[in-house]
Amino acid sequence: RHSETDKVDQIGIVTGLAWTQVGGEILTIESLTMPGKGNIRQTGKLGDVMKESVSAAFSYVKSRMDVWGIDPKLLETTDIHVHLPEGAVPKDGPSAGAALTTSLVSALARIPIRHDIAMTGEVTLRGRVLEIGGLKEKLLAALRAGIKTVLIPEMNVKDLAEIPENVKEGLEIIPVHHMDDVLSVALTEAPKALPGAHIVGTKGKKETPKGLSRSFRH
Amino acid sequence: RHSETDKVDQIGIVTGLAWTQVGGEILTIESLTMPGKGNIRQTGKLGDVMKESVSAAFSYVKSRMDVWGIDPKLLETTDIHVHLPEGAVPKDGPSAGAALTTSLVSALARIPIRHDIAMTGEVTLRGRVLEIGGLKEKLLAALRAGIKTVLIPEMNVKDLAEIPENVKEGLEIIPVHHMDDVLSVALTEAPKALPGAHIVGTKGKKETPKGLSRSFRH
Amino acid sequence: RHSETDKVDQIGIVTGLAWTQVGGEILTIESLTMPGKGNIRQTGKLGDVMKESVSAAFSYVKSRMDVWGIDPKLLETTDIHVHLPEGAVPKDGPSAGAALTTSLVSALARIPIRHDIAMTGEVTLRGRVLEIGGLKEKLLAALRAGIKTVLIPEMNVKDLAEIPENVKEGLEIIPVHHMDDVLSVALTEAPKALPGAHIVGTKGKKETPKGLSRSFRH
Amino acid sequence: RHSETDKVDQIGIVTGLAWTQVGGEILTIESLTMPGKGNIRQTGKLGDVMKESVSAAFSYVKSRMDVWGIDPKLLETTDIHVHLPEGAVPKDGPSAGAALTTSLVSALARIPIRHDIAMTGEVTLRGRVLEIGGLKEKLLAALRAGIKTVLIPEMNVKDLAEIPENVKEGLEIIPVHHMDDVLSVALTEAPKALPGAHIVGTKGKKETPKGLSRSFRH
Amino acid sequence: RHSETDKVDQIGIVTGLAWTQVGGEILTIESLTMPGKGNIRQTGKLGDVMKESVSAAFSYVKSRMDVWGIDPKLLETTDIHVHLPEGAVPKDGPSAGAALTTSLVSALARIPIRHDIAMTGEVTLRGRVLEIGGLKEKLLAALRAGIKTVLIPEMNVKDLAEIPENVKEGLEIIPVHHMDDVLSVALTEAPKALPGAHIVGTKGKKETPKGLSRSFRH
Amino acid sequence: RHSETDKVDQIGIVTGLAWTQVGGEILTIESLTMPGKGNIRQTGKLGDVMKESVSAAFSYVKSRMDVWGIDPKLLETTDIHVHLPEGAVPKDGPSAGAALTTSLVSALARIPIRHDIAMTGEVTLRGRVLEIGGLKEKLLAALRAGIKTVLIPEMNVKDLAEIPENVKEGLEIIPVHHMDDVLSVALTEAPKALPGAHIVGTKGKKETPKGLSRSFRH
Ligand SMILES: [Ca+2]
Ligand SMILES: [Ca+2]
Ligand SMILES: [Ca+2]
Ligand SMILES: [Ca+2]
Ligand SMILES: [Ca+2]
Ligand SMILES: [Ca+2]
Ligand SMILES: [Ca+2]
Ligand SMILES: [Ca+2]
Ligand SMILES: [Ca+2]
Ligand SMILES: [Ca+2]
Ligand SMILES: [Ca+2]
Ligand SMILES: [Ca+2]
Repeated sequence: RHSETDKVDQIGIVTGLAWTQVGGEILTIESLTMPGKGNIRQTGKLGDVMKESVSAAFSYVKSRMDVWGIDPKLLETTDIHVHLPEGAVPKDGPSAGAALTTSLVSALARIPIRHDIAMTGEVTLRGRVLEIGGLKEKLLAALRAGIKTVLIPEMNVKDLAEIPENVKEGLEIIPVHHMDDVLSVALTEAPKALPGAHIVGTKGKKETPKGLSRSFRH
Repeated sequence: RHSETDKVDQIGIVTGLAWTQVGGEILTIESLTMPGKGNIRQTGKLGDVMKESVSAAFSYVKSRMDVWGIDPKLLETTDIHVHLPEGAVPKDGPSAGAALTTSLVSALARIPIRHDIAMTGEVTLRGRVLEIGGLKEKLLAALRAGIKTVLIPEMNVKDLAEIPENVKEGLEIIPVHHMDDVLSVALTEAPKALPGAHIVGTKGKKETPKGLSRSFRH
Repeated sequence: RHSETDKVDQIGIVTGLAWTQVGGEILTIESLTMPGKGNIRQTGKLGDVMKESVSAAFSYVKSRMDVWGIDPKLLETTDIHVHLPEGAVPKDGPSAGAALTTSLVSALARIPIRHDIAMTGEVTLRGRVLEIGGLKEKLLAALRAGIKTVLIPEMNVKDLAEIPENVKEGLEIIPVHHMDDVLSVALTEAPKALPGAHIVGTKGKKETPKGLSRSFRH
Repeated sequence: RHSETDKVDQIGIVTGLAWTQVGGEILTIESLTMPGKGNIRQTGKLGDVMKESVSAAFSYVKSRMDVWGIDPKLLETTDIHVHLPEGAVPKDGPSAGAALTTSLVSALARIPIRHDIAMTGEVTLRGRVLEIGGLKEKLLAALRAGIKTVLIPEMNVKDLAEIPENVKEGLEIIPVHHMDDVLSVALTEAPKALPGAHIVGTKGKKETPKGLSRSFRH
Repeated sequence: RHSETDKVDQIGIVTGLAWTQVGGEILTIESLTMPGKGNIRQTGKLGDVMKESVSAAFSYVKSRMDVWGIDPKLLETTDIHVHLPEGAVPKDGPSAGAALTTSLVSALARIPIRHDIAMTGEVTLRGRVLEIGGLKEKLLAALRAGIKTVLIPEMNVKDLAEIPENVKEGLEIIPVHHMDDVLSVALTEAPKALPGAHIVGTKGKKETPKGLSRSFRH
Repeated sequence: RHSETDKVDQIGIVTGLAWTQVGGEILTIESLTMPGKGNIRQTGKLGDVMKESVSAAFSYVKSRMDVWGIDPKLLETTDIHVHLPEGAVPKDGPSAGAALTTSLVSALARIPIRHDIAMTGEVTLRGRVLEIGGLKEKLLAALRAGIKTVLIPEMNVKDLAEIPENVKEGLEIIPVHHMDDVLSVALTEAPKALPGAHIVGTKGKKETPKGLSRSFRH
């Protein structure tokens, strides 16, 4: 009973990785915009921690919309809905933060997400990607599902020693430190910052949006 | 104690299929519009997962109203109520998604739904129809209730092997991949897209609303 | 400890029939309008299913106000309160739907309800009256309370075989299919449809409000 | 530990009668108006049934404000707070309805309530006073507290046979059928109806406010 | 682990007295105004009964603002926050009513409260001070904390017989009947009533604000 | 599994100290502003007491914005989100008050916080820093995490006697009495008060903002 995303790059749809008692699993996340007033709805039997991840991801995105070329007035007339299909399966934990954030940015900036990547990582309000658990199970699930590239938190590089060789050979594993790194890999096009956009970066001062100058893969 | 829908095509009323511990059952779903402000109400002793299905269906419908010829300003002055009769019987699960979505589109676009069809399938925020459980019990219930045509998720075609021959002979079983497929069978008339309407389709780019060009049965 | 309605036809007050572990009972339902903004309040220790019946009844009434001659702007300046006296006694179940709907229509259209009738029946969002349980106990309670006429769902006619002869002789039992049937019996005057009112009837198309052309009893 | 109301007639303060496992008790009820927007607050450790009594009393009062000479625009700029002192003692049940209604009318119409009376009785949305339990214990409590006059529901007259003679001699016991009867005894002055005020009375048609023409005692 | 208020008279800060299973304790209460819309927030692990005390105190204060010289429009642009420090310690009961009310009046009228007094007493919506429990434990706690003056409900004077002599000698104990008595002792300056202010006093008619003409101590 | 803050001074990010059953731990707190209407959101699996600490900190900050040079109209167009990373770990208690307040002031005044300090202390609505528990465990955790300077409540100075010498030598321990002390150490620049700003200080009268005139370290 897999939801198996269509094999095309889509706006707002991204593959996360979950870790359950019976092993790892891929987790489809979809965000959709519609006429509204800046509210967010979330469905898919999410637990409290994952609901808070959505809330934190939404705040992070709202604080940096200009950097991703999103009209700051968009949320005055738009609602957004985040749904995780297979609505009867409970889902929880903070490690979907990077995938949730990517899904929201994609939906609001109207840029598709690569369908052949998956990602795992908690995210802070500044976009810092934090360590997660269950790396091995998650990578196995990604391999099984035909994923080509997996983004993992830089803090989990230490765990790669315990990952079987065939898994590491079958997947491109990219450690990421910040959402800038995630988006530069996951989005199929680089967002174009609005004129005058500035990043209130991790160092507390204006900086050139370096994440955006990296070469984008697609 | 059946609610037995009247034997006519009606706006907003559709037959779903439920799977309970004591077998399959048909499930009437009705949506009704009234003066309001874009709110949705839901009644009929729905469990949390089914309530989330209604919410996701409503978001999907709001994101594509122009494609179905629904005035985008309609929800500024209209509320919608989704009710599942036999209000004392608890109902839950995600597999009513396709029926809920069909009911909402019908009520808002004012196009009746074929009374002789039933359907089952979870739906994503993009209208993708996902696998469900209890296919055999649901088809038996449809046959018993005099249904002629049943829409099932394409992902469940693999389960048709275990369905008794007499059931497969007594029903027209149509696998569906997307809500476009569902609506082209279930609605008695093709919706007329508003001028300039575009589908933000499953491939993340504009496309001709192909679902709407299919021949409609009625 | 009976609340015993006064023996006069009143606006907004109707007699329902309940079925409890210790037999049937009559159930007074009262609706009252007051200055407000279209909100509904409900009191009387109602269970969740009965609260949903009130909500569904209110939606049904809001969708057809013009047919009953109710100014469509009335709810912009009016709240409505539904109360079931004997406030310490828990009440639940869907079978008060017909009585709740009758009470709301009466209160908004300012037409009294016959005090010598009682009714039982679940109601759909289109006004279809559905089967209920405990018919025998309910009819006995009506007889005990001095009721003359009882409206029951057409779907329960099959149960009349098990009803004692003296009960069937002591009561006028009227099977009803739709709220149009209920209101044509229960209201003391026929509502006058607003000019241009149309019924979005059970067949999904405009129709002459036939229920209203029936002869009214009083 | 009694709250013992001051021995003067006050606006908004009335004595109810409660019936607990350890006997009857007097129950002070106070209502207070303040600048606001028509909201009602209720405090004093009230149970759900008593909270619903407050809500029903408030609706009844709002539907008849003109009859009591209360400016219909008052609630656009006024909030009302209902409090039952001895805030640590749980209070519940429907039988404070008459006292709650009297308190609200007094506070909004600015007419004091007799301090030497007490009352008990559930109230419907039309002001009908319904039967209560524990009459004997309540009358004993009133006598103990120095109350002169007790209003009881007409439906409880049948219970007076079991009341000890000394209680019936020590108290003036007045059976009441409707809130009109209660207010004509309890308020120290007759409210003056606004010009054009009409009572939507128990018979569903306009009537001269007869309750108000009775002689007022004070 | 005491919060020990600073030894100065402050606006909005008052010492209450609590009675717990392990004896009496002093209880700091602080109210703070900030830009807002007339809302009140309350924090400090308050139980339901104490939350209701805050709500009742706020209503009482709102109904008499002119008497204390508080601009009636102040709450259109001001929120107020009531906090009881030592946020991990659960606090409950109605006996903080007098202290809560004093704190609110002080914060809104901008008049400091004497830091060397403490008080205990439930309060009604009219400012009547009601009996409390645990008087002995509370007085001992006040003495231990270096308090000079304690306000107690007049209704508790009967309990002074059981209080040890050294406690009664170490404290000035002032019985109070009404919040007017409390404020005339606790505030460091007499509030100046607004022109035209009237007290809707305990007798239901206008009266000269006598509480305010008493000599203020400071 | 540490969240390890980046080793730079950042706006809105501060290190708190937690005390759990298995010892002390550092606790990252981050506040982020975004377009909004003055609402605050809080995430990170916070318990009720910590949620109240956020609420109290927010009120304190709102009451003194002018002193820190924050435009009083800022909150009409800004929301603020407080998040504590490691979202799956439950966090509770009042002792993060000082860190929460520092984080909010930093985010609203746009002044970075020193990354090499940590702090612990409950805070009152006037900014008074109150005693906390677990000092030893918290200091050990700070040392382990490479923190240079720890702010502790003045009330906890008495506990320093039990702290091992090596801990006291490895850390600069600064006792603080008031949030003014905390901010003058923790912020990398002194906030500039708005013209006309006044402190409604702990003594209930205007005073020169003395905390701000102290030398700032950075
Ligand atoms: Ca799956
Ligand atoms: Ca997870
Ligand atoms: Ca059924
Ligand atoms: Ca299902
Ligand atoms: Ca009864
Ligand atoms: Ca029922
Ligand atoms: Ca008592
Ligand atoms: Ca009672
Ligand atoms: Ca203490
Ligand atoms: Ca207490
Ligand atoms: Ca940690
Ligand atoms: Ca703590």
